[in-house]
Amino acid sequence: MTAPGDRTRRSFVIEEAVAILARTPATLDAMLRGLPDGWLVAHEGGDTWSALDVLGHLIHGERTDWIPRARIILEEGRSRPFEPFDRFAQFRDSAGKSLDQLLDEFAQLRAESLRTLKGWRLTEEQLVLQGEHPIFGAVTLRQLLSTWTAHDLSHIAQISRVMTKQYRDAVGPWRAFLPIMDR
Amino acid sequence: MTAPGDRTRRSFVIEEAVAILARTPATLDAMLRGLPDGWLVAHEGGDTWSALDVLGHLIHGERTDWIPRARIILEEGRSRPFEPFDRFAQFRDSAGKSLDQLLDEFAQLRAESLRTLKGWRLTEEQLVLQGEHPIFGAVTLRQLLSTWTAHDLSHIAQISRVMTKQYRDAVGPWRAFLPIMDR
Repeated sequence: MTAPGDRTRRSFVIEEAVAILARTPATLDAMLRGLPDGWLVAHEGGDTWSALDVLGHLIHGERTDWIPRARIILEEGRSRPFEPFDRFAQFRDSAGKSLDQLLDEFAQLRAESLRTLKGWRLTEEQLVLQGEHPIFGAVTLRQLLSTWTAHDLSHIAQISRVMTKQYRDAVGPWRAFLPIMDR
Repeated sequence: MTAPGDRTRRSFVIEEAVAILARTPATLDAMLRGLPDGWLVAHEGGDTWSALDVLGHLIHGERTDWIPRARIILEEGRSRPFEPFDRFAQFRDSAGKSLDQLLDEFAQLRAESLRTLKGWRLTEEQLVLQGEHPIFGAVTLRQLLSTWTAHDLSHIAQISRVMTKQYRDAVGPWRAFLPIMDR
């Protein structure tokens, strides 16, 4: 449990998580739709991800990770381990799709996911049910749904960071005030 | 200059910067408006900032930093050093304001800033004009406008990171896959 007044961590409350999950498509839409292509394919070097790559990854998560794993927990518990999540599926599945297509696809899939989640009307008893993660072993439905939420936010942070760093030379001496540039 | 095909850094191009600057109010609106208060006041401990604090800081920047400093460069050059930017003004100016008020105020101020910027129809010759930064000394208008853009993105990344970390206990073992939790 989180101590009252602690502003550094929150306990999972499904309505508060859904408030985040429901906003992610519109947030990415506001941030990205219509941007010049250079921003969309910008990355951090090597095989790091661009905004387009992250969007493809989020789409793959809607299809194969969050709701499918929640369903396994609810219906089969630990008897059926989760499929390992393919963190590189977007390089196959999203190849050649435009930003607009990816944003629309993500928004539609997320809306479906949230309809499914709400339809379950999950109880406290269900949130403590366990599944079998291929690496971690026992995980609860509550942890899975918390991770789904934090995962969204972490990728919004990633996209913003990747784009910020594009200007690390352009800002000149101000780089000293922007530690994110060297992260 | 940026090498063609380099996806890790961009040269400043005013239309590309304006594309980011124009999107920030709608991005923050999509991300934050209507969220439960606990998310809005969440921070990283000590005197770190919440989403509300960041929003107040962005508002203060519109009023006193970006366009005012650009105007000093255009009209007075290095003869008049910039005022030091007050990074804590929001704790005075935004106290007691609701999220909705802050979002509306930021959107309005940003729209005015961009009207001013567009009205200037800046030329290459003007982008290399210099101002006098209280710490860095000579800085160019191009560097100032690059910093304005990167600063927006860095604060979107910060807000997302602050909110992500709220679930660092809630995610259980998945914390190992979310390095942002321990940043």
